[in-house]
Amino acid sequence: MLLHNIEELRDQRSEWKNLTVGLVPTMGALHEGHLSLIKKAKETCDKVVVSVFVNPIQFGPSEDFDKYPRTLDKDMELCEKEGVDIVFAPTPETMYGKGNRLSNDTLTYVCPPFFYVNKLCGKTRIGHFDGVCTVVLKLFNIVQPDYAFFGQKDAQQVVIIKKMVNDLNVPVEIVQCPIVREESGLALSSRNKYLSEEGKKDALVLSKILNNIKSCYKHGITDIKALKETAYSFLGDKHELEYLEVLNKNTLEEQVKADDDSIALIACRVEGVRLIDNIYLCE
Amino acid sequence: MLLHNIEELRDQRSEWKNLTVGLVPTMGALHEGHLSLIKKAKETCDKVVVSVFVNPIQFGPSEDFDKYPRTLDKDMELCEKEGVDIVFAPTPETMYGKGNRLSNDTLTYVCPPFFYVNKLCGKTRIGHFDGVCTVVLKLFNIVQPDYAFFGQKDAQQVVIIKKMVNDLNVPVEIVQCPIVREESGLALSSRNKYLSEEGKKDALVLSKILNNIKSCYKHGITDIKALKETAYSFLGDKHELEYLEVLNKNTLEEQVKADDDSIALIACRVEGVRLIDNIYLCE
Repeated sequence: MLLHNIEELRDQRSEWKNLTVGLVPTMGALHEGHLSLIKKAKETCDKVVVSVFVNPIQFGPSEDFDKYPRTLDKDMELCEKEGVDIVFAPTPETMYGKGNRLSNDTLTYVCPPFFYVNKLCGKTRIGHFDGVCTVVLKLFNIVQPDYAFFGQKDAQQVVIIKKMVNDLNVPVEIVQCPIVREESGLALSSRNKYLSEEGKKDALVLSKILNNIKSCYKHGITDIKALKETAYSFLGDKHELEYLEVLNKNTLEEQVKADDDSIALIACRVEGVRLIDNIYLCE
Repeated sequence: MLLHNIEELRDQRSEWKNLTVGLVPTMGALHEGHLSLIKKAKETCDKVVVSVFVNPIQFGPSEDFDKYPRTLDKDMELCEKEGVDIVFAPTPETMYGKGNRLSNDTLTYVCPPFFYVNKLCGKTRIGHFDGVCTVVLKLFNIVQPDYAFFGQKDAQQVVIIKKMVNDLNVPVEIVQCPIVREESGLALSSRNKYLSEEGKKDALVLSKILNNIKSCYKHGITDIKALKETAYSFLGDKHELEYLEVLNKNTLEEQVKADDDSIALIACRVEGVRLIDNIYLCE
């Protein structure tokens, strides 16, 4: 069932009072990664809601909000095939009101802590995680799910959302699901659609760099500088590295040495497309 | 029943699944103003929770957090007399975790819009309304009330909380209750305890100024500068006026002329105690 309005959704939700409800928040352009979240939600919950909303307030002014892929008909088809109960696809006006300037001048924001935000993607995507937390909390309040499902692909996002849920006592359990990859190793992403065939090949360095770091760690290298330096042999002039970090996977804190709680994270542009990926050094 | 822990409260709440629950959030030191909120809650809801929590993150470093009156035994007595079902009195550690520095470096905050904050009390109490919205949303998430009751005394606070509820789709209905006054006209406030008998007399100018503005409006004066100027004859050297404004009561926007949607708001120090009051020009 496709719903666009908050009231319709609340009406439907109130009929599920004694059932467990799972929410899979997405920006649409669904791929196997999203479908793995939906499958997990179907296993866990009586009813599953997938939200499809390209959230304007998490995009910076120079980012790809306008050209972000929108494929609602295909998304609906995929959701129906997976037995999703409701696809919730509101407009920006439904979510943020008509005529509101979308800024903290005029709207209430949820602001995750500076310590979690001022690194990795947050360092270049100013305001991005404020926008993410705000829309996720709104969706939680609208859908009132028991469980919500997020992919590990956006590792910083999951850590920040777990932190928000903890800090604000949000009564939702966050379920984190593993990254889904093409056979080549490329992490699935809606933004892969921007890449040429050539670009997709160049994009393989992200997972190669991460796998190599993990392998070095398994062979006993724990010095983080040494682990990061192993990346340089992979990078060519097609790659614009934005960051490569090895941090504590739960808190995103810097570590003296890599350990079994470490995560390696990378952001790199290929053909101008910003791609991210990450790997747990021990799993 | 007095509860200190979040889990105990959630357990109790889950037994009330099919009942309506009202929350009266307070900082304790309960007076007739709070009791009017509790009475309204009892009328409206099957079960009533009163929270008693002096919230550290809404006090500035030079404010009265340490000396703010704490009278839990007496508060409990009053609540029992009113038939309150649960008094929820958590510690700061329960609400914000152990060893957390209470700042936006380490904690997720709810930040109301700058336009609503950068005036009246928010202009001098930097970060105050971030602290208020954050704790109120936490309490909403912990108690999951159907209704929450706030006094009009803190007029800017109610407007900001209604805005938060709207912006973040919080599934709670906000009920605003009128100011309760002593026979003298003095608005009840926990901070009145700081005043001497002499100070309480000096404090009467707040309500006198507001009543006079309302009376002038009823007599046809709508020029806001003229309405505000009527205050000066009341103010003496015992009074440190912080602000006196006439604004739209729903949006706190400045108006060209006073009208039936106007509210007059005042903040004034007497004996160093910061007092606030307000009045609707038409009610």
